[in-house]
Amino acid sequence: MQAVYNIAEICARHGITDVVLSPGSRSAPLTLAFARHPAFRGRLRVVPDERAAAFIGLGIAQATRRPVVLVCTSGTAGLNYAPAVAEAFFQQIPLLILTADRPPEWIDQLDGQTIRQRNLYGAHAKGAFDFPADTSHPDAKWHSERIINEAINLTQAAPAGPVQVNIPLREPFYPKAGEEMGYEAEVRVSRQVNIPQHVANRDLYDELASPLQMESRVLVVVGQQPFSKKLSETLQNFTRNYGIPVVADIIANLSADSFVVRKQDVLLAGLNESQKLDLRPDLLITFGQSLISKSLKLFLRNASPRQHWHIQASGEVADTFRSLTSIIRMEPEAFFSQLAQETPTVDADTLVLWQQAETKAEKFLQDFFALINQPFNEFSAFRKALAALPESTALHLANSMAVRYANILGVPIGRQIEVFANRGTSGIDGCNSTAVGAALAQPERPVVLLTGDVAFFYDRNAFWHNYPTPNLRVVLFNNHGGGIFRLIDGPRQQPELEELFETRQTLTAENTARDFGLRYFPVSSFAELDAALPVFFAAETGAAILEVFTDSKTNAAFFEEYRAAVRKAFS
Amino acid sequence: MQAVYNIAEICARHGITDVVLSPGSRSAPLTLAFARHPAFRGRLRVVPDERAAAFIGLGIAQATRRPVVLVCTSGTAGLNYAPAVAEAFFQQIPLLILTADRPPEWIDQLDGQTIRQRNLYGAHAKGAFDFPADTSHPDAKWHSERIINEAINLTQAAPAGPVQVNIPLREPFYPKAGEEMGYEAEVRVSRQVNIPQHVANRDLYDELASPLQMESRVLVVVGQQPFSKKLSETLQNFTRNYGIPVVADIIANLSADSFVVRKQDVLLAGLNESQKLDLRPDLLITFGQSLISKSLKLFLRNASPRQHWHIQASGEVADTFRSLTSIIRMEPEAFFSQLAQETPTVDADTLVLWQQAETKAEKFLQDFFALINQPFNEFSAFRKALAALPESTALHLANSMAVRYANILGVPIGRQIEVFANRGTSGIDGCNSTAVGAALAQPERPVVLLTGDVAFFYDRNAFWHNYPTPNLRVVLFNNHGGGIFRLIDGPRQQPELEELFETRQTLTAENTARDFGLRYFPVSSFAELDAALPVFFAAETGAAILEVFTDSKTNAAFFEEYRAAVRKAFS
Repeated sequence: MQAVYNIAEICARHGITDVVLSPGSRSAPLTLAFARHPAFRGRLRVVPDERAAAFIGLGIAQATRRPVVLVCTSGTAGLNYAPAVAEAFFQQIPLLILTADRPPEWIDQLDGQTIRQRNLYGAHAKGAFDFPADTSHPDAKWHSERIINEAINLTQAAPAGPVQVNIPLREPFYPKAGEEMGYEAEVRVSRQVNIPQHVANRDLYDELASPLQMESRVLVVVGQQPFSKKLSETLQNFTRNYGIPVVADIIANLSADSFVVRKQDVLLAGLNESQKLDLRPDLLITFGQSLISKSLKLFLRNASPRQHWHIQASGEVADTFRSLTSIIRMEPEAFFSQLAQETPTVDADTLVLWQQAETKAEKFLQDFFALINQPFNEFSAFRKALAALPESTALHLANSMAVRYANILGVPIGRQIEVFANRGTSGIDGCNSTAVGAALAQPERPVVLLTGDVAFFYDRNAFWHNYPTPNLRVVLFNNHGGGIFRLIDGPRQQPELEELFETRQTLTAENTARDFGLRYFPVSSFAELDAALPVFFAAETGAAILEVFTDSKTNAAFFEEYRAAVRKAFS
Repeated sequence: MQAVYNIAEICARHGITDVVLSPGSRSAPLTLAFARHPAFRGRLRVVPDERAAAFIGLGIAQATRRPVVLVCTSGTAGLNYAPAVAEAFFQQIPLLILTADRPPEWIDQLDGQTIRQRNLYGAHAKGAFDFPADTSHPDAKWHSERIINEAINLTQAAPAGPVQVNIPLREPFYPKAGEEMGYEAEVRVSRQVNIPQHVANRDLYDELASPLQMESRVLVVVGQQPFSKKLSETLQNFTRNYGIPVVADIIANLSADSFVVRKQDVLLAGLNESQKLDLRPDLLITFGQSLISKSLKLFLRNASPRQHWHIQASGEVADTFRSLTSIIRMEPEAFFSQLAQETPTVDADTLVLWQQAETKAEKFLQDFFALINQPFNEFSAFRKALAALPESTALHLANSMAVRYANILGVPIGRQIEVFANRGTSGIDGCNSTAVGAALAQPERPVVLLTGDVAFFYDRNAFWHNYPTPNLRVVLFNNHGGGIFRLIDGPRQQPELEELFETRQTLTAENTARDFGLRYFPVSSFAELDAALPVFFAAETGAAILEVFTDSKTNAAFFEEYRAAVRKAFS
């Protein structure tokens, strides 16, 4: 088992600190290797439901920006990781997945917990390695160490992502009583060092800055990306110099700046087609991953810009708007910082139009929610919850309505709020768990999850473990079903709406809160919500659920009212 | 969408009646196609958690012995099916999996809920079909219908199993208000008809019966298989004629007969090595799928029979005991019924030895449990629960300890109890859901699940739907952790036993019962258990959980006492 124990040593040498494991017998040598290694002390967690375990690992990796190790036993355990693995793949989160397996000769021989684990995640892992079953030959020993190095490096090579190492293990799995187990000091470590590439300014200018100035209407659109102070500042310099508007979804994590348009969901819903024509870019520059805003996507698809440059240093590139003309292989930060050194001739006409629309959208939202006689509804309640977020919150937005409401309303400016959402695959299956992982990884900051009832109850096993998360707050908007379906025209008109689409469900979080020792705040009115929010968010409250009960028909009617008001406000 | 609606029509023509779907927008055309088709009325169910949905579908297919249709939306929804798909693959249960998808041109373009769904289950599906995105060309229309026929037939072709059809769908997903939607009468239907093969008796005799009689010690061992009255009777005739013992695990579903040995877990634990030598077969004949009994597997692996015949009409064959010499491509029922027509010379020495050991094992169990001063422990409680099972129960045994205890103790004889267990992959991930599926499919019979706390809480979402299951009873043995690890020597000796292996967990089912409106019977003593069992199993009680609280240390000590007593009884 020495080669197996050494896996933990190699991970430690690569600076990995966090391990999430699920119980199992076949995986015991891996479990012991990590549990007894000092590098993982206090940061190794046991989570019984592998689906939740993998999303918790993903949440930790999101927060720490380092690979997290997942360890599971043989059989379907590893298949329960699959949803989180796909999310990690598309969200580019590094996960090192160690699946314990029977040795190859025992596959398909009707033994228990035995499936076909090689390359278990298919197209959703960056790579899949087969650890040798026997490492007695020196070449095999070298192979075993090489594989772990390769796998760790692959998780981090841009674009980052999940990598599986399948590890066949023969009995005995456990050291005998009194038997020493240790790590070899001379394990191989092969690191990968990323050196930033420099580009001569003149070359970049000739290739890009000059055509950039020839287009009269340029627009920068930013997809999902983790917060980066440096990138935010660089982009700010660039847009100021060039007078180019930037449109960013909430998950783009761009710090506040008057050049950044954030109310695209509102203004694009309000403007008529001819007004939108004036906003259309001739040159679209994008970076980052996915967009939430469907109206922005449709606007850009219809806009058919003459040129669309997408800036992405490596990896496959999507043609999200059917207009891609250039893939620019640079880091966005390098791209904008070098261009910002130019002193262009600025034509700020489009910028002004976007800024005017943004201002109008902001004023509209303020006026609309200042209306008296609002019935209690989740859109308004959501706005209040956002407004009450503590300083430095790691804000987790669940799919499907939570992230949409948040993108319409925006986070409070100036509070250093960082936004996370599983938009790699936009699933509801691991939203709780991802937030739990974030709370475990960053005990010093508040972690707030805004979620709906279907996503919340789907992933209740997120809380089924023995690790406290006093900094975690879950605001649960419970309308007893998939409320989103009542907001979409198609399903709303079907007689089967309630049974098949909305899927009425009767749970409340009260029993879940009781099961997991979470403080519980149920509210059903604005007054109750206003009273609960400060207590709920107070640091001394500890892990808690604020359950906001609303009626899905009222929600739908109010949202319809909002939609009509937007159109009216802009006409 | 006509080609998509026709999928439901083709399924109906093939006699499929049960559909489990999970909510989604992309999948709406499929949802409506099945929901509006009369063939599925009352047997179409909506289950929000896809992991549970797929296992519920598996439970229905197990019970009805017909393919069940699963429908999910795009993205990770289909990945949550993966554990049940693997179980269906290895347990040979027919499932037709319809995954809604974006059309191919929109894959990897950063749209929401979009992953790489083609061949999503890899090596764990019998096949994966790509439904055409566009069926306007007549060839494509023919292709679309052919695919569905092929997929349905493939689910049932021996060995049965899961098949995926990935269905790309373009908007609009919903018919407009007032728009008619229907099914075409002239859809293509291609059926597969299985004609039993006849074998000339003489040929079979020359090939098999004659060598069979030349071996002095013959043993038949039966793995997991669904109950079959005809096969049970045939096997009975065969063994009586030949004087050959049959060893069968509880999941082999063989009806009672004095030739059938069932207490192998007890007798093989009790006999010493020289006694076991006398039981060794020279010719081992096997059929069926996996065995639970580890001691039986080890016994047969050590026995190294001169010949091992495995009878299996089709599909890959495992060499479970490392001794396989002949694969006999026949249905076991045909094999034994034809051989039973011979009048062999019987040498019943081995039979007598097995029968004596069986009798001794039975008597030992009776004596052992008649001991006074038993502490309250799960092994004894399990025995009481088994003894109280109602007539005609569909008994579901969860992994991991439940199925082992049951295999040691056996089901009451003469009550027509049919035994189910997810032994294809031996996972704990879908035991509740499979039982729920069985309860939905067979409302007329009691469905009883015996399970442990880790398996139970793992799969609580099994109950998260709107369909009553008044015939379902869950007996939950809660020792607050993975008790199995305390019963195995390896983990028991590690200092990390509680944290990493047993994984102490504090949940009780009280809140779960409250959440899902299940009657709840908590018991912590023999007296409470004895009082609760008749009420709990009474038909008028409705869906209920009987939670048996035991202490894992007491359980381990008692089981150790049992092990010592077995060895003593046989020495």
